[in-house]
Amino acid sequence: MGFPPHPPARSSARPDDRAVGGAPIIAVDCNGADMGPTEVAAGALLAAAEGAKVLLFGPADEMGIPPTLRERVEIVNAPVSIAKSADPVSAVRATPEASIVLAARAVAEGRAQALVCAGGTGAALAAGLFNIKRAKGIYRPALAIPLPIPGPSPARSVTLLDVGANAEARREHLVQFAFMGAALASTVLGVERPRVGLLSNGEEAARGGRLIVETGEELAARARSGEALEFVGNVEGGDVVGGVADVIVTDGLTGNIALKLMEGVSQTLLGAIRDAAMASVRARLGGALLRPALRGVRDEIDPEEQGGAYLLGLRSLGVVPHGRFTRRGFAQAILRAQRGACEDLVGRTQITLEHAGALRQAPVSAEAASLPQA
Amino acid sequence: MGFPPHPPARSSARPDDRAVGGAPIIAVDCNGADMGPTEVAAGALLAAAEGAKVLLFGPADEMGIPPTLRERVEIVNAPVSIAKSADPVSAVRATPEASIVLAARAVAEGRAQALVCAGGTGAALAAGLFNIKRAKGIYRPALAIPLPIPGPSPARSVTLLDVGANAEARREHLVQFAFMGAALASTVLGVERPRVGLLSNGEEAARGGRLIVETGEELAARARSGEALEFVGNVEGGDVVGGVADVIVTDGLTGNIALKLMEGVSQTLLGAIRDAAMASVRARLGGALLRPALRGVRDEIDPEEQGGAYLLGLRSLGVVPHGRFTRRGFAQAILRAQRGACEDLVGRTQITLEHAGALRQAPVSAEAASLPQA
Repeated sequence: MGFPPHPPARSSARPDDRAVGGAPIIAVDCNGADMGPTEVAAGALLAAAEGAKVLLFGPADEMGIPPTLRERVEIVNAPVSIAKSADPVSAVRATPEASIVLAARAVAEGRAQALVCAGGTGAALAAGLFNIKRAKGIYRPALAIPLPIPGPSPARSVTLLDVGANAEARREHLVQFAFMGAALASTVLGVERPRVGLLSNGEEAARGGRLIVETGEELAARARSGEALEFVGNVEGGDVVGGVADVIVTDGLTGNIALKLMEGVSQTLLGAIRDAAMASVRARLGGALLRPALRGVRDEIDPEEQGGAYLLGLRSLGVVPHGRFTRRGFAQAILRAQRGACEDLVGRTQITLEHAGALRQAPVSAEAASLPQA
Repeated sequence: MGFPPHPPARSSARPDDRAVGGAPIIAVDCNGADMGPTEVAAGALLAAAEGAKVLLFGPADEMGIPPTLRERVEIVNAPVSIAKSADPVSAVRATPEASIVLAARAVAEGRAQALVCAGGTGAALAAGLFNIKRAKGIYRPALAIPLPIPGPSPARSVTLLDVGANAEARREHLVQFAFMGAALASTVLGVERPRVGLLSNGEEAARGGRLIVETGEELAARARSGEALEFVGNVEGGDVVGGVADVIVTDGLTGNIALKLMEGVSQTLLGAIRDAAMASVRARLGGALLRPALRGVRDEIDPEEQGGAYLLGLRSLGVVPHGRFTRRGFAQAILRAQRGACEDLVGRTQITLEHAGALRQAPVSAEAASLPQA
């Protein structure tokens, strides 16, 4: 099984300091995938065949890696899973031997440079926050996903965030998400000066309720004073696939709903077309002739091809694939993490936020507060 | 141009009291449509040909109705438009001669039984609130739209609300929206006991932030004590087209984004397939053979075929079509309003809310509050 070649790293990319002298190592949690650890491990082998260095956490005897391929990846036997926990935060605290916790610790301790977790956003987020920790000045991590827009070449994409790390958001969170998304679009997707839009129910700046209006005002002010992004204002639901913005910012509740809705509508529509192509002899013949072209459209929007969402805002990169992915999707997730680590997505995100003045200010310490004024 | 026949009114439908003795009259505001008053007037003529009684407000000399057809609809010359106003609330207050205000007043005064407005949600909502007034016990009107789910017959649909009347919502608003949507689904779509879901970023009751969690708890409690609906709990974005619920409740910001996203994704995907069907001789031949079947899918999800959204929560029914509709969509909007008035959608919504105990309680008056306790 082959993978589409990744475009070469941009020449301006700064290598990840921690990975100097070699490719980054990706810590992968095998627990939690719908198809079990075997499928994640198989994905790791595919990614390794593409050059990824993988440190695999999970039940070693359930990974199903043939002895002849054992040396392709490094395995840490970690059979304890908290992927199905209803309360991932408590589970992460209470279960230091859980595979996701061990994988996150490997990243925190520098034994790996990025984390891939098949066991759900909640567990990845909690394990990341407790072990890898929040990056300096970040209010909250966010899940960001670059989505392909089907249509004529050249291929277009839009990066949507937050797609589910935080159900609720405040103004300062959304402002940071805008710069985090812009850093992702310029670092990984090579967009020179990303156009950033704020998802709302109308294009006018007054639309969307207080949170959207205030966020829009602050983004407009901060964008004017920096080069990191162009703020295009409010965008509507239809604009997500309309090419008017490279990055679209929203809270994790709306973003998650939008992401799953896009996938659902696409699948339902392709299914209806498939059914329509079975409805008559004429349609069946047409469907058979058109099949290769339709397959191209379907592959273009295939979530597995994308590899999942970036978890941004921790001190190292995370990637969260869908739990229902096959090995192909998990391999893409690992390659996505590898590429993000190589291009120092975390460091460049930090620089973007710093230049925009969008980092959280450290609270004034008691000592500093009591200093006499000059 | 023909229209698909509407299914016959359900035998249990109680006729609108105000329309006893004749078909309801629909007040239609012609101003604000992208294609101008001519297109709305043409839609009114199409609806009249299907039996609708129409009272048309707008610039009489721009309606382009041929003298031979003038008697098919009643025209009120109302050239003043506030459809493009950035602040519809102020515009409605300041412009009593605006066509939308005159149309809403006709409904308020019983000269018409339902309102159709091509000039945008904001103007329809403000004119409706100030003239037709909120129905008793309703916190806020909501926009509800039944959406077809493409796929094999029998045709399925899902009613989404609020799709944009209120950008922000509180718990008690969302609870009312659930019963308003259920009344719509049972009255107009004939769904016996609608399954109602709450849009969230996960199926677990704990997902979605405080508003969703608290709304879910109240809906579950109220649904248990009534027959009007079955509450299926949280549903995800993909479930909107998954057939797991007949009615899906969300705030107007998320609902509007979801609605426009669905339309955008569908159009983009159909466009990509059209392009793919031009890519080679083989694909072109396949596309030509498949065209009738594809057209069926496209027509099935065509927003014009639906006629727009129901504006629920006023003392009379409103219908808000897209401003970009052609005459076909405006005709459907008028027929939708006519059918809703015939089946007393407003009265039945009120009964549903009352039985569920979801009506707003009248504030205790000063006199009642000072009565001595028994």
